[in-house]
Parts: sequence; structure tokens; C-alpha cells
Amino acid sequence: MAKKTLNVALVGYGFMGRAHSNAFLQAGRFFDLPYQIVLQGACARKKDRIEVFAANWGYASAETDWRRLVDRKDIDLIDIASPNDTHAEIAIAAAQAGKMVLCEKPLGRNASEAEAMTEAVEAAKVPNMVWYNYRRVPAVMLIKHLLDSGRFGKIFHYRAKFLQDWTISAALPQGGEGLWRLDVSIAGSGVTGDLLAHAIDTALWLNGPIAEVSAMTHNLTGQVEPVGIDDASAFLARFRNGSLATFEATRYARGHKALYTLEINGEHASAAWDLHDLHRIQFFDHRDEGGLRGWRNIHVTDGEHPYMKHWWVPGLQIGYEHTFTHQVADFLDALGQGNAAAPTFRDALETDRVTDAVLASAKNHSWEKIR
Amino acid sequence: MAKKTLNVALVGYGFMGRAHSNAFLQAGRFFDLPYQIVLQGACARKKDRIEVFAANWGYASAETDWRRLVDRKDIDLIDIASPNDTHAEIAIAAAQAGKMVLCEKPLGRNASEAEAMTEAVEAAKVPNMVWYNYRRVPAVMLIKHLLDSGRFGKIFHYRAKFLQDWTISAALPQGGEGLWRLDVSIAGSGVTGDLLAHAIDTALWLNGPIAEVSAMTHNLTGQVEPVGIDDASAFLARFRNGSLATFEATRYARGHKALYTLEINGEHASAAWDLHDLHRIQFFDHRDEGGLRGWRNIHVTDGEHPYMKHWWVPGLQIGYEHTFTHQVADFLDALGQGNAAAPTFRDALETDRVTDAVLASAKNHSWEKIR
Amino acid sequence: MAKKTLNVALVGYGFMGRAHSNAFLQAGRFFDLPYQIVLQGACARKKDRIEVFAANWGYASAETDWRRLVDRKDIDLIDIASPNDTHAEIAIAAAQAGKMVLCEKPLGRNASEAEAMTEAVEAAKVPNMVWYNYRRVPAVMLIKHLLDSGRFGKIFHYRAKFLQDWTISAALPQGGEGLWRLDVSIAGSGVTGDLLAHAIDTALWLNGPIAEVSAMTHNLTGQVEPVGIDDASAFLARFRNGSLATFEATRYARGHKALYTLEINGEHASAAWDLHDLHRIQFFDHRDEGGLRGWRNIHVTDGEHPYMKHWWVPGLQIGYEHTFTHQVADFLDALGQGNAAAPTFRDALETDRVTDAVLASAKNHSWEKIR
Amino acid sequence: MAKKTLNVALVGYGFMGRAHSNAFLQAGRFFDLPYQIVLQGACARKKDRIEVFAANWGYASAETDWRRLVDRKDIDLIDIASPNDTHAEIAIAAAQAGKMVLCEKPLGRNASEAEAMTEAVEAAKVPNMVWYNYRRVPAVMLIKHLLDSGRFGKIFHYRAKFLQDWTISAALPQGGEGLWRLDVSIAGSGVTGDLLAHAIDTALWLNGPIAEVSAMTHNLTGQVEPVGIDDASAFLARFRNGSLATFEATRYARGHKALYTLEINGEHASAAWDLHDLHRIQFFDHRDEGGLRGWRNIHVTDGEHPYMKHWWVPGLQIGYEHTFTHQVADFLDALGQGNAAAPTFRDALETDRVTDAVLASAKNHSWEKIR
Repeated sequence: MAKKTLNVALVGYGFMGRAHSNAFLQAGRFFDLPYQIVLQGACARKKDRIEVFAANWGYASAETDWRRLVDRKDIDLIDIASPNDTHAEIAIAAAQAGKMVLCEKPLGRNASEAEAMTEAVEAAKVPNMVWYNYRRVPAVMLIKHLLDSGRFGKIFHYRAKFLQDWTISAALPQGGEGLWRLDVSIAGSGVTGDLLAHAIDTALWLNGPIAEVSAMTHNLTGQVEPVGIDDASAFLARFRNGSLATFEATRYARGHKALYTLEINGEHASAAWDLHDLHRIQFFDHRDEGGLRGWRNIHVTDGEHPYMKHWWVPGLQIGYEHTFTHQVADFLDALGQGNAAAPTFRDALETDRVTDAVLASAKNHSWEKIR
Repeated sequence: MAKKTLNVALVGYGFMGRAHSNAFLQAGRFFDLPYQIVLQGACARKKDRIEVFAANWGYASAETDWRRLVDRKDIDLIDIASPNDTHAEIAIAAAQAGKMVLCEKPLGRNASEAEAMTEAVEAAKVPNMVWYNYRRVPAVMLIKHLLDSGRFGKIFHYRAKFLQDWTISAALPQGGEGLWRLDVSIAGSGVTGDLLAHAIDTALWLNGPIAEVSAMTHNLTGQVEPVGIDDASAFLARFRNGSLATFEATRYARGHKALYTLEINGEHASAAWDLHDLHRIQFFDHRDEGGLRGWRNIHVTDGEHPYMKHWWVPGLQIGYEHTFTHQVADFLDALGQGNAAAPTFRDALETDRVTDAVLASAKNHSWEKIR
Repeated sequence: MAKKTLNVALVGYGFMGRAHSNAFLQAGRFFDLPYQIVLQGACARKKDRIEVFAANWGYASAETDWRRLVDRKDIDLIDIASPNDTHAEIAIAAAQAGKMVLCEKPLGRNASEAEAMTEAVEAAKVPNMVWYNYRRVPAVMLIKHLLDSGRFGKIFHYRAKFLQDWTISAALPQGGEGLWRLDVSIAGSGVTGDLLAHAIDTALWLNGPIAEVSAMTHNLTGQVEPVGIDDASAFLARFRNGSLATFEATRYARGHKALYTLEINGEHASAAWDLHDLHRIQFFDHRDEGGLRGWRNIHVTDGEHPYMKHWWVPGLQIGYEHTFTHQVADFLDALGQGNAAAPTFRDALETDRVTDAVLASAKNHSWEKIR
Repeated sequence: MAKKTLNVALVGYGFMGRAHSNAFLQAGRFFDLPYQIVLQGACARKKDRIEVFAANWGYASAETDWRRLVDRKDIDLIDIASPNDTHAEIAIAAAQAGKMVLCEKPLGRNASEAEAMTEAVEAAKVPNMVWYNYRRVPAVMLIKHLLDSGRFGKIFHYRAKFLQDWTISAALPQGGEGLWRLDVSIAGSGVTGDLLAHAIDTALWLNGPIAEVSAMTHNLTGQVEPVGIDDASAFLARFRNGSLATFEATRYARGHKALYTLEINGEHASAAWDLHDLHRIQFFDHRDEGGLRGWRNIHVTDGEHPYMKHWWVPGLQIGYEHTFTHQVADFLDALGQGNAAAPTFRDALETDRVTDAVLASAKNHSWEKIR
């Protein structure tokens, strides 16, 4: 039986442009999917760059104006992997043109942008999804399954950190080529939108809504010209389920490359994960026999673990990139069944509401409730 | 040359009474000290208990009223290891009687008590010290030495946690035999004074004064009768040196027995430690050769490491109990040289000021500055 | 500039067939290579299976007789990923037809087969390589670079293990679909050729030739019918450089999925690696400052680490599969420069000589010298 | 009820003399024992040394000739902590004088000495024990209990290593003050008797008798004058229960201080332990729910763990030294009940038989059966 084709166009050619492209190519090789992706076009302002990129990844065409993609009839889905300040305009136009829309995170630079985007895709009734890729690490998905099974009981604590050190001491300019993440007018915020947003998305998904936050942010770069970027951001939170949480993100934690960690403590069980060994979870079950209780170091590479039967054999881990591959596979599966694949724009809007509250709390020195 | 004797009396016979007694006996066996400790008396209200205790540890006498110890001429030093609500009265009386005073932590149930105690020992000019024992873990002392050597550069971040799970789900009464830590009128507070106080003492010592805090506390026991105890307490902090911090303590973190962890991130280096493997530090030095940078897992058991030449051979670790042994050794060494051994009452008062601010912040939903 | 094309055909469609195919497709996306691979044909005896396989991976044709591939003029390179008993016949025919030959490990079922294969490719002067993929784990390659830099000094010890548990208690038939690794007539040996061969290849590459071995092997399956397969194999070895070694492989080590570990101890430095966290090495340098010596936990994901600048950003690891991708990239780079890419058939022959000696030693209860 | 006293005399004042003395003093403080130890005498040839030692540890007298201890009526038990070449003569004389005898390991320099010693204590019917202290690490004892409970099923593999690096590159003389372990005439052998003996004792206790061994030993010191000491020793073994094993000990493993590790793999479960974190075991149980199987990291510090109710609270570890404390406690408990405490001389003789076979195998290049 011939598969239906899905014609995809990409905006952006950076780190995320590569990650999405790879996922579009790999998903069908390892998963049996209801659609065959066709890479119809790639778009960026710089003609020479996007032509090289399109050739490398096998896109059939290269464009320099994303409005061309919106207008083309041979494109079903537009994937946005360009800087944050372009998300809203492209997504809204694409939705209005009836295209499916995938968008790199954070959805908007703030909740206001994200709301307009969410309204646009919902008004147009187009399938949509945001690339909060860490949900699809097999180990993180395993934690989700364990939580859903009810074996944790009441949740008491959640804690997450995302620690990096790449901006310390560097004579980093404000923004600039490849550094738009350091330019607040483009990025919206610093680590709050870049790193904390990941931690918040996972937390909302695993532990439900956050009720209120108290935050602090700081600019540690010591640049003469104020850049408006938060290099470090931390907050206390209460979830609606009564659990207490601490969150922290920074680019000034010497020795950590991309150490996203999370831990959840329940009445009966606890689990922890970190991105530096993304194929493992630590799991503690108080119902284990007394003297033999311990944190189980689970190497999430067995066929019965989420996603893993599609890959190699037990013990052989897969890489970061396949969080995106899994997201493509899940999106296509859901599409085939007429369902939405999470996180939708509406899901991701919640994360923008929390990051807005974090930034407001830090500015106002107050506890802020999430709308 | 005959050593001078130091006549010691102890108040209390619980967990800390055992730990202090063991330290008094062991210090002289492993360290060459200027004083020989003589265990003159042990005191507690329950006669049968204290007699058994005194016999086991070799105290020459057993008393049931601590005022007797204060009056006795054959006692040079009174060590307070009884519940928190007794610290101030005993310490002040002992100081006024000209005794040296050692006091288990926290110094007072609040800063007000701690101030009165500090004034008493300073007015009496008696040597004094508080048992914040974790400073004397060899691995923690190594971090202190590394910080003092200047190799971290500017400090950006500090984070500490003290996670336990022993009060979850237990049908725990309010206070009661062996459970005074759960009675706010005796303990002063819950995990804030019990666990966070340790984390704060170490932090102030390693990273200097804290300027302000924003905290949340919570009672998770779900007891019908309100116990006033914080089972979980977390706070954000800014140190005076500009670094940002997160602190958390809880008795509701399933899977953790006594997981006190700390990490400090500087411009050039970072270090981390945890109590579950108390003989190790993790140390990262950015000045290591590029491709070979990594966290060094240092097994702090070599002769050149703090305190360790007094014990066994490299690779063989010592236990928790010798944090107290080291504190006795340092106190006697300092005494022989006419110096104070840290933390003094004045040092420990600072910790009570921070815990007061934490409790006030949690109550007021506000950032609180430390006096 | 248009790249030259390299027309590739694959024999086999199992675990290794997938791994090789993926590598052929991925190498060019992430590495700038002098050749563009074209997947011309895939071959296996089962027509339905190979047609599905060829369609999935994009092979232009499906064949059921490998001799057809040897005869076709539109094929430059034949890659052998079929069971061990087919390696020699196919490789020799392909070489005689002037094709480049890649062969899955072990090269032959024994050194005699491997010698004939080596002679064939050398006589035909065709580029050739064996898929001992673990050499191209970035972390393992980093150890090789460190050794080559001379910083270890004289080598004293080498130890390697490859521990699995997948054949315990299973009612496993002798051989059968997907289980040819348990059939000695096809596989040549059990864990000796399957797992120890990997450990030996890496060891010879890192530490030079092995002089002599004393081995034991065992069949633990407890099957009524003798299967001739070694389920466990261990040996002592002396390398020609004077260092001492222990090697062990088993499929009966409960709790281990594919735990290939290696460690090398030198006069000045040591390094260790394991497959369950394949992106890390542990590195100890005795020339570090005394009290700060420790095993450095190096997360081999920086741009300056082997291969890693081609992938994502620091902290984000890649998967097992890219050991093959790297091998394709290195092969094409070498081909472009007219060089051989290691391990060649001649290199891999040495491993077969060691595994032969291991099996002989186990049988004869003797120390065996390597020819 | 007054306790019976047990009058103890010690021969030796080195590392082990301190460890035994500390254990004699500490056991009664933490364990409720049927005997009160009285330290009657300490003995060594150097008068000034032994007098300082005796004063420090509270021995009532200092002797310079061990025969004096054997003759004294006020001594019940003689503990031998002097170099290996003195064990046999002292032990035999003490036994013949009707004293209980404790002896540091290895029992004899070889099995012949050990046999004579065993015959002597058995002929005299005196209680006796050898200080293979690692059996009494709580974590190791927990593994023993797990094995005895039958939950491992059939045992397939055992592996142990004892890795050190303290003799590398040092300009170490042959023997000399504090270095008798490097003098073969005194020590009997190098790492085989010093380190492997520990590994063998634990293995025999946990996994039963060893049937045969194939070994290699090596002198790596590179001294001009042959010292006869094995700096490295490794062997393959088959246990009588059919399991296969590898053992290795060396003083040339750069980066390792005293890394004694052991692992046992059974049909249903596996366990591992190492001396550098002596309070933990790793435990894997295949009967855990499929997707949640993992190695449990068990922090052996709970009241229900072996020995631990006598110490502090969960999470707080004890040190190396209390392996000896536990051995004293167990010896006195057994004595009170008229039982023998393991390992007796006869138990320890088995270890000497294995080390003899190891040395013979290494010399003869043969497999050697254990008598």
C-alpha cells in the first residue's frame, strides 16, 4: 500500500534546522508511519547558505522569503526553526494559509505572542506542535509512563536545573551571527526562555499546572552595554497538586555543558534523569523489600522501553537527535489517526505563561500567580 | 611531658550525646593534642538512662540536673547536646560560671536566643564553639582550602540541598520520646533549623554572608493537629559577593536518607560534595587542557588531604563520626594556642539570622534582607 | 564541484545490515566527504525480506544471490553483513572481481579463513576494511589520541570485559532464525568471536600485539544437545610491550546488557571507558597536583573531541549507530587520499589469530603464543 | 550484671596494630557484648616505639619479647599483628600455652606454615580467628545474606580485583622500615598474599571452594636486584559450583588507591561492591518488573542492614576501621556462646592453599588444582 505523502517546508538552517531535517529523514527509516515525508523546500534570508543547506539535506528547493512557502500549493506543513522573533508572524501566516505548523520552542517571545499564535492555529483548525523535544527522550517518557501508572502516589517535590557554562568569560557581543540567543529583542529573554522553558514544559507535562512562583534573575556577563539578557534564572514554585519545586537555569555554572536534570519525589516512589546520560533514569520504589531499597539505575535501551524497539539491541543507546525523530514519528502517527500530538501550541502557551510570571516575579520581587 | 587535662561534662545522651562522647574519646588517640580530656560528668533528667550512658562512655559521674555541672569546680567545659529549647539557659549559666561552652546546633531556637547566648560567652570571655560538624568532613575542608587558594575566581552560584524521607507516611506523633525534632516549641522550627541550618553554616563559611532570601516552607505531614513544623523549606538567596543560590531541605524526598549536597560554581572552577559519599569531592578546573576537562572524582583519603594523615592509608575512608573527632581536635589545638575554634557562637548566630529570615520570608511572601 | 559517486551493494539485512545502511546514508549529511555514496543494491536469500529492506533504506535494487552483485559492473564496493560462515566466500569473490570489500567482524570464522580473505584483497589490491566499529566511538578515539601523545608512559595493565545476559534461562534453540550467533558451524565460536573479538581488536589497536594467552571457555546453556558454543570466555594475556591483561566475555552476566568495558593503566596515566555510557571516558593523570588528583569524568561531546564538531553542541551525545557513520566517513576520506582505513583485513586477521589462540588454550589447558 | 573480662595482648604496633587496638576499644562502646576487653600488654622489639604505642592506646604494659606474653598468666588472648614471617612461631607458641589466638592475614607465608598453625590451635582447642576484615563490611555482609537466602539461583561468574598504585616509580628499597611487604622473605609473596588473599577469602566465603586456577604474576618494579615480589598477580579460576572467575591484584594500576572490587552473577540476581565506597552495594534482581530492572544502588546504612543499628542514623556511613570493630564484636559474641567466629585458622588455611596454587601456576605455566 502506497503511503500518503506529506510535503514539508522548513524555515531556518541553524542548529534546530539541522535537527529537524535529520528527524524528517530518519523517522520513516525506523518507524512504520502512515505518511512519507517529502522535503519540498527550505528557506532563509541568505541565499548561499540556504542553497548549501537544502542540497545537503535533500530539500527540493531553496527559498529566501518564507512568504513564498506560505503561498506555495505544494506544501502541506511549515516548520519554523528560525530565531524566536520570527515565530509569531510566520506561524500565523502559515495557519491562515491552511498549512500545518510546527514551531521550535519557545512558542512566542512572551505569552501574548503565544496566545495570538495559538488562536491562529485553532481558528484555522490546522495540526500544530511545538518542538519541546525532551519529552521524547525514552527515559523521560518512561518516567511519564510510571507517573501515569499511579505508582508514585501523592507528589511532594519537583526539582529541575539546566546548567551550562558557555557564556562565561567569553568576550561575547550582544547578539550577532549565531548569537541571537544573547539578544533580548530577538530571543525575548535569556536562559528563562531558552533553558527554563524546557524544564517548565517537562514539569507541566509530568506534574500538572504551576500555581505560583517566586523568581530571581541576573545578568552576569558584566558587559558595559546592558543586554537585557538573564544569564541565570531561578525560581521557587508551588504546583496546583500541592507539591513544592525549585527550578534553576544558568549559563554560568562552570563545568556543566548542557546539564538538564529533573527529579520528582512522590509518596511511594521517586525518579530522576539528566541530559548528560539521557538514556538512564534513577528510580526508587519504597515498596521494594526493606533492606534492598535503592535507586535503580535503569538503562533505558530495552525493547519494552518507550521507542526503543525501533532501534538497536539492549545496551546500545541512541543519541540526542532522536528526540526529534520520535517527535516526527508521533506527529505522523497522530495525524494518521486524526489526533493532535503534544505539545500543541496551546500546551506550549502554558510554558510561556510561566516564563512570563518568572520574569515578572524577578522584576517585582514578588510571588506571581500563573493565570 | 604530661599533658594538661581538660575536664568535660556533657548534657544530653541522645544521638548527639553519643557522637560527642565518641569524639572526646577518639580525638586523643589519633591526634597529638595539647590537652587530655577527662570525662567528668554526664547529665540528663532520667536517672536510669544517664547512668547507663555514663557507664558506657566512661564518664566519672552521672547527674540529673545540669545546674550541678555548672556549680562543680572540677569541670572546665560544658557541652550541650540536649534539645534545642535547653540550649540558651544552660549555655548562659555555664558561661556566667566561667565554663567553656560547646553547643550542639542550631545555637538558639531563633536569633534572639542566639544573641543572648553569644553575648554571655563573650562577656564571660570563655572559649566556645558550635557543633556544625560538616565543616570538618575532610572533603568539605578540602573545598574550603581550594576556595581560599583563590583558584575559583569570582563565584557565580551556590546550591545546597538536605533531603530526607523519614517522616513520610509515618503515624508520627507531635514530639514525644526521641521525636522532639517534630515539636516546634522544643525545636524552634522543622527542617529549617534542623537541616537547612547545616547547609547555611557551610555556605556562609565557604561563600561569605547572604544578603537576602525569598523562601517557602510547608507542612506536609497532614496531621489533624497543626504541629507548626516545616517539613520542607526552600529559598532563593543572593550572597553579598553577588552570587546566586538555591537552598532546599525536606523530610519528604522519597529515596534520600540524609542527602546533604552542596555545589559551588566559580569563574574558573567548580566543586561539589554530598554526604552519602562524604569522602569524595567532584572538582572541575576550566584551566585543565581543553579536551581533557572533566569533573575530577577525588577520593579524599590521602595523607596530604585535610585530617587524613592521622587515620589509615590512601583509599580507606573514615566515617561520619569523625567530623566530631576533628572538631574536638581543632578545638583543643586552638585552645592550646589561645585561639578560638570556628564556628564560635558568634559565627553560629549568623546562621540563626538567616533561618529567621527564611521563616519570615515564607510567612510574609516577601524577600527578606539579612540583618 | 560535483563529488565522485561510490556505488555500494550490501549483503545481509539483519542488525548489521541496518547499521551499515544507516551509516551509508548519514555519513554524507554530517561530514564533508570526497565521495557521494549511491546505494545500488541489497542482497539476501529471502526475496520478500530483502525487497522490504531495500525499499526502506533506499537501495536501487534487491538481489537474492550475492554472485549477481559481484558480477554487476555498476557496483564499486561490496559490504558483507551476512552471517560469519559467508564472509570468506563472498569477500574472496568480490576481491577477485575487483570490488572494494567491507566485511562485518569477525573477519573469518578462524584465522585460516581470515588469511585467505586477506590474501585475496591484497592480491587484488582492493580497498578493504572490517567493521570493528568501537574504535570510532569518540571517547575510545580520544583514548587512542591520548596514548599516541605518549602521556601514559610505560603501560602496565590492560583489562577488558564484554558482559551480556541475554541467553540466560531462555529456551534457546541451537541457531535458528536470528539466532545464528548460537550455532557454532555458522558463527565459528560463541562469545569469543562475537564479543571478545571486539575487545581484542580495540586492545591490539591501543596497546599493540599480544604475545601469549591462557584461556578458559565454558558452555553454560545446559542444553541437552551440545551446541559447541562458548557462552563465557576469559583469558590472561601478556602483551609484547610487557603489560599484563585480563579479558572476559560472557552472555551469562545477569544485569549487563552490552557492557563492553576497557581500562588501561600506564606509568603516568590511566583511562577507562564503557559502552553503557559510550560518550564518556574516565581519565587519571598522576601529574595533576597532588591533593587534587582524581579520575576525570570527561563528557566527550565538545567540538575539540574526535568527530564531535560534526554533530550537535557540547553536552549532547550521539548514539551507538554513529560508530558506523564515522567508519564510513573515515573510509571515504582515506579512499580520497589513496590511503587504507583501519582496521584493514590484515589488521583484523590479527584478532582472529588471538581468538584462535584463546580457543586452543581453553581446549589444551595451556598457554598459547600468538603467531 | 558484671561482664567477664578478657585480657588481651597485642604483638605489633603498625597499621594493623592500630586498627586492632581501636577495635578492641570501640567494640564495647557500640555493641552489648558478653566480655569486657582489658588491654593488658603490647609487644614489639623496639622499646621506645612500643611504650609510646601502649600509652596511646591504653595498654597496661609494654613488652619487647612476645614470649613474655605467652608466659604471662594474666593474658587470655594473643593477637598477632606483626609481619608475616612471625605469625607461625608466635601463634603456635601461644596456642601451646593455652591462649586464644587472633592472627592478622595471611595466616602463614604459605599453606605449609598455615597448616602447622591450624594444627596447633586445634590441638590446643583454643578459640582462634584470622583478621580477614572485609567480610564484616556491612555491605559485604549484606551480599552474604542475600546469597544465603538463595535469591541468586545458580552462580555463573565471580570476579574480583584489588588495585593499588603506591609502588609505581618510587625508588623503593627491598623491604626496610615499614616496607616489609616488599621483602619476599618476610611477606612470603607480594600482592598475592597481601591483596589477592583478601579477595580469595571473601570469594571462598561467598561462593564456596575453588577447584583450579591458571595464574600469571609479574615483577614490575624494575629493580636491579631481584626482590622476588609479585607486583601484579592475576588468575582464572573455576569454582567447585561450576562458576567461572577472574581475579587480579596489582600495585601498578595508576589511579587506584585500594580499589578492592567484587561482583557475583547468578541466574536471577547479581551484586557488586567496591572498597572505595564501602557502604554501598549494587544489586540487580531479574525478577523485578521488566521495564524497571536496574542495578539498585543500596546505601547500606539503615538499621535493618547488618551491624548498622549499632551506629548512627540512615545515610550516615561508618569507616573502614569498623570492619575490625565488628570482628571483635562477633568474636566476643561467639565466645560467649561457645562458638567459633569465622574465619578460623582452618578457614584461612584454605586461602593460603589457593595462593600457593596461584604462585605455582604462575611459575609452572600450568593449571593447578587446589588440594
